[in-house]
Amino acid sequence: MTQDPLVIFTPSGKRGRVPAGTTVLTAARRLGVDLDSVCGGRGICSKCQISPGKGRFDKHGVTVAPDALSEVNAVEERYDRIRGLKPGRRLGCQAQICSDVVLDVPPESQVHRQVVRKNADARPIVMDPATRKYFVTVPEPDMHEPKGDLERLAEALRGQWRIDEIDAAPPVLAKLQQALRKGNWEVTVALHHESDGGVQSIVDIWPGYRDEPLWGLAIDLGSTTIAAHLTSLEDGHVEASAGVMNPQIRFGEDLMSRVSYSMMNEGGAAEMTTAVRAAIADLARELAAEAGIESADIVETVFVCNPVMHHLLLGIDPVELGQAPFALATSDAVALPARDLDLGTVNPGAQAYVLPCIAGHVGADAAAVALSERPDQSDDLVLIVDVGTNAELLLGDRARVLACSSPTGPAFEGAQISSGQRAAPGAIEAIRIDPATKEPRFRVIGCELWSDDPGFWDAVGPGGVTGICGSGIIEAVAEMRIAGLLDAKGLIGSAEQTGSARLQPEGRTHAYLIHDGTEAGGPRITVTQGDIRAIQLAKSALYAGARLLMDERGVENVDRVVLAGAFGAHISPLHALVLGMIPDVPVEKVTSAGNAAGTGARIALCSLAARREIEGLVREITKVETAIEPRFQEHFVAANAIPHATAPFAGLRAAQPLPDPAFNAGSEGGGRRRRRARE
Amino acid sequence: MTQDPLVIFTPSGKRGRVPAGTTVLTAARRLGVDLDSVCGGRGICSKCQISPGKGRFDKHGVTVAPDALSEVNAVEERYDRIRGLKPGRRLGCQAQICSDVVLDVPPESQVHRQVVRKNADARPIVMDPATRKYFVTVPEPDMHEPKGDLERLAEALRGQWRIDEIDAAPPVLAKLQQALRKGNWEVTVALHHESDGGVQSIVDIWPGYRDEPLWGLAIDLGSTTIAAHLTSLEDGHVEASAGVMNPQIRFGEDLMSRVSYSMMNEGGAAEMTTAVRAAIADLARELAAEAGIESADIVETVFVCNPVMHHLLLGIDPVELGQAPFALATSDAVALPARDLDLGTVNPGAQAYVLPCIAGHVGADAAAVALSERPDQSDDLVLIVDVGTNAELLLGDRARVLACSSPTGPAFEGAQISSGQRAAPGAIEAIRIDPATKEPRFRVIGCELWSDDPGFWDAVGPGGVTGICGSGIIEAVAEMRIAGLLDAKGLIGSAEQTGSARLQPEGRTHAYLIHDGTEAGGPRITVTQGDIRAIQLAKSALYAGARLLMDERGVENVDRVVLAGAFGAHISPLHALVLGMIPDVPVEKVTSAGNAAGTGARIALCSLAARREIEGLVREITKVETAIEPRFQEHFVAANAIPHATAPFAGLRAAQPLPDPAFNAGSEGGGRRRRRARE
Repeated sequence: MTQDPLVIFTPSGKRGRVPAGTTVLTAARRLGVDLDSVCGGRGICSKCQISPGKGRFDKHGVTVAPDALSEVNAVEERYDRIRGLKPGRRLGCQAQICSDVVLDVPPESQVHRQVVRKNADARPIVMDPATRKYFVTVPEPDMHEPKGDLERLAEALRGQWRIDEIDAAPPVLAKLQQALRKGNWEVTVALHHESDGGVQSIVDIWPGYRDEPLWGLAIDLGSTTIAAHLTSLEDGHVEASAGVMNPQIRFGEDLMSRVSYSMMNEGGAAEMTTAVRAAIADLARELAAEAGIESADIVETVFVCNPVMHHLLLGIDPVELGQAPFALATSDAVALPARDLDLGTVNPGAQAYVLPCIAGHVGADAAAVALSERPDQSDDLVLIVDVGTNAELLLGDRARVLACSSPTGPAFEGAQISSGQRAAPGAIEAIRIDPATKEPRFRVIGCELWSDDPGFWDAVGPGGVTGICGSGIIEAVAEMRIAGLLDAKGLIGSAEQTGSARLQPEGRTHAYLIHDGTEAGGPRITVTQGDIRAIQLAKSALYAGARLLMDERGVENVDRVVLAGAFGAHISPLHALVLGMIPDVPVEKVTSAGNAAGTGARIALCSLAARREIEGLVREITKVETAIEPRFQEHFVAANAIPHATAPFAGLRAAQPLPDPAFNAGSEGGGRRRRRARE
Repeated sequence: MTQDPLVIFTPSGKRGRVPAGTTVLTAARRLGVDLDSVCGGRGICSKCQISPGKGRFDKHGVTVAPDALSEVNAVEERYDRIRGLKPGRRLGCQAQICSDVVLDVPPESQVHRQVVRKNADARPIVMDPATRKYFVTVPEPDMHEPKGDLERLAEALRGQWRIDEIDAAPPVLAKLQQALRKGNWEVTVALHHESDGGVQSIVDIWPGYRDEPLWGLAIDLGSTTIAAHLTSLEDGHVEASAGVMNPQIRFGEDLMSRVSYSMMNEGGAAEMTTAVRAAIADLARELAAEAGIESADIVETVFVCNPVMHHLLLGIDPVELGQAPFALATSDAVALPARDLDLGTVNPGAQAYVLPCIAGHVGADAAAVALSERPDQSDDLVLIVDVGTNAELLLGDRARVLACSSPTGPAFEGAQISSGQRAAPGAIEAIRIDPATKEPRFRVIGCELWSDDPGFWDAVGPGGVTGICGSGIIEAVAEMRIAGLLDAKGLIGSAEQTGSARLQPEGRTHAYLIHDGTEAGGPRITVTQGDIRAIQLAKSALYAGARLLMDERGVENVDRVVLAGAFGAHISPLHALVLGMIPDVPVEKVTSAGNAAGTGARIALCSLAARREIEGLVREITKVETAIEPRFQEHFVAANAIPHATAPFAGLRAAQPLPDPAFNAGSEGGGRRRRRARE
């Protein structure tokens, strides 16, 4: 006659009838509602908190009575007294459903809670970490049934958590017995599973209920910098981040010099492996100290890196990556015990996951960018550019994704530039040149003011301008082009041709003086003809790579461009377009994804599903090898002009007029008068 | 019209028709015939050799024409010329079937070849090792399809060997690329699989075809001695064996003193772990050197040991094994990378397997004995006794198997015996006492002669008799009983009571003088009343354990007794019966299984199926805990008499008459005259 109570969970909307007296946790499990619990319903962990609704819910056709849930029992009362529950919250494992009720599951009570990313457009990360904690009560040993402690723990996990199969490495076996006895046969175990339904390995075990969260490290292992993000495996938040220089720099500044160090020196690869692993171990220890956690609570590590770093991290000699056909030792994702990587103080049972490489020149870092930006889920055609010494490019949409790398060289990072320097305090990072007066104003790293703002010189000091970093040189060259100091071929005009004394002869060419700090004992900062040539080479390579992907895809235009990488975050879209680094798109369609590789690492750290997704996507990506494509050279040559010799860049010109002078520049012009660059 | 040729393989009898021109190897695979191949049919490895029959086979109704197989081709001719084929043999991968043929597969061409054991009654070992070699041709890298070398190797193994999934740890990844290039894209890989159909891990990889066999180590890790057998994983033969003292002896002679060392000393367990692992690593290196192989060719290790050794090997503090309820950290079989056990020079990719433990006192060594002797496959009821400091007992037949351990103490090993010593040259290992003259004759280890044989004293030298070992003391006590020098209660008679001057007073009891070497500077070797008491305690414990299993099984008799263990091999069945160590069975029903634990280790090394079998059997075994069974004490007391206070031992007495004197022995008899022991 009387029906069982109806229970409706929000936000999922899942509903069903359960017998009166059913706990909320049991009802949630029965209805497939994502409600967390670590202690398994013992009123200890409070992960299963819910907020019961009150009164009439027209949407659901339900009126919730004040006594729809059972009264607070002793367990719940005790929890509230000692640890405190937020107002209106109940413990799902204690509260019983007495009559129709609407229950809200707050985000922190969801196992698969969503982590909103900084970039508002980006899909949230859905938590699905490989390592989770379980609280479990283990039967005591029995001489009549002399099973081992591990086997009784396995049975308890099967019975209490439906976990089929576990295994334990020697370090865990060594602490198992004491943990069980110290916890009076109640323990918290951290279990790692790489795949659904497989064997779960015990990462660690603690006596009793352990509340401390588990942590993971997302590591972006670059040739120059190693960045690590200490990330909660419960809610995905980044607790602390840190970066260090890659100590392999002492073996070679760039990748190819490290490959050749390995070729020339017996044991060289092993030396570099040891160095980079030690640096990561230090970083882990420092991050743990900074966050005030035990480094043994770091139970997961995820790595993204280029192929050479990938091989050196794993202890593989990268020599094959230095020559065609650039064969990777392994291209698939690599999952292995972190102890195989000598990561120091992280948990001895911690696991490591290295994202798959796309190709011999397109590494796990590019895969991580793809995981962060998901070109395969884009409705419009997106070009994603990760700018570095090597640029990795991804072009795609829902139909198909292509990838290549392009050898831009280090000019974009300020190397091989006469006044170039790393992005550090004192480096010019932004510059504007007045098209009328040809006078520059600029901003340096470490100061928010522009050089023509009052107080700038007080703030930076007389010797406080030290050089130009990567984003600074891009803006400088583009501004020179906008101001008519540079022609489309990339020739710098003379003082006479431009009407500015800042154009000063340097040998048979000219240089543009940005800042003369010599009187204050500082440097004289100029953009020379050589600098222009270096930037032209780099941007031509980048553009040619993009163009090759567009050819392969059969398109003449892309819909939008995403600049990834720490450097990408500082590039001005307009200046990148003026320079012709990227294909012509409306300037508002050029966006920065920030450190997309690091974000991809963090996503893989928080979600097993994401690992499977990127592994699948990498298999599907069409790999284009720039080194063996004859058209690459053609595209490269045509891209040498600023912005381009043949592509009209009409959209850009509509937004930003470009004067088109042509400078007859002694040696470079060969004495002939140049024809105007075609528009 | 014409039928396909009929091919019949012997000894399997498998038959079928295949299209003319099919190679023998292909035909064998199609018909499910067990024909080996490492090179995959390239005429390199010669593992697929067969012997074609000739003429008429009435049994099969087939006449084999002289040209039933194709002529020797260039590949086969080359192999024969360079490496030689036995007369009548053909390479199965080259020879094609042209007409009806009978083909014999010799044992060495079978993957699952049978290894006949020394004990003629024992079932042969069917080879089914966890690690096998595969020769494979890997596609070269392709810039247009930039898969890693590992992924192309995986594809080749899938295509050429139907191996679904592989993985590779960093040490293998580190050598993969060079091996592929040095072998010109042909490599031999050793793959390990713990379970059918699972992921196979690459243990090692070599350029080109590698003919050298793979090796395994079967390790019997005893409290006193560590024995290792270097065993071929191809045909199961033992190439070399060696033993060393367990270096843990310096921490405690017996198991319990090692447990207490661990309890009393912080880090004591870790010290013992390090010591035993180092000894095993040394043993592996020595065995490899002795056999003239690379220790890196050792790719599998199997361990059998008692529970305390088991825990110390795995790095687990054995403290829980020193106290009730004797909880094992883990009872199931343990499979782990050998590098987790620091085994030194064995292959870095080698795997280790530790047999399951039966109970807290009945270890993986007892499981190994069960695997060797298979009580669960016995038609008659067998009692298997592994005699050591702790005796492990198995009782069973096809219906049911039971196990227990019994705390015999070290008397059977010559410890706690006045003239006792380890089994070493000079130790009396056999003794006979003339029932008429009461004069002894004996044999010592290191000399085949009896002491009354001419030349004995020349052979051993005047000081060459040094003590009595375990089997010697058992025989001495039993012989004293047979000769009427000892009554059923275990009292030694006086010279007056026995009529022999060799019975000499010692305090208020008597001792039997076996040998007085004092004149030659040697020892005076006697059996004292204390020695008798020590042996009585040990044998009562052993008998009581057996009796408890018989109670549990509900039987009064067993059909046969197997003495296992190195010591069991030296015990005389008659003397064991006279002593009442074991239940009364006809003397010919007492056999020795030799080092059954070591054999069990070797079986598990050679056969994955055997591992699954013993894991299943151990789960099924009924475990009996002697320490908590009140009847154990009763049985122990009744077994104190020699042979027994209540059990008639009628079978024994029929074969070997026992006099039944009763000696009134001062202190022991309390001055009262003892009644005769009941028969």
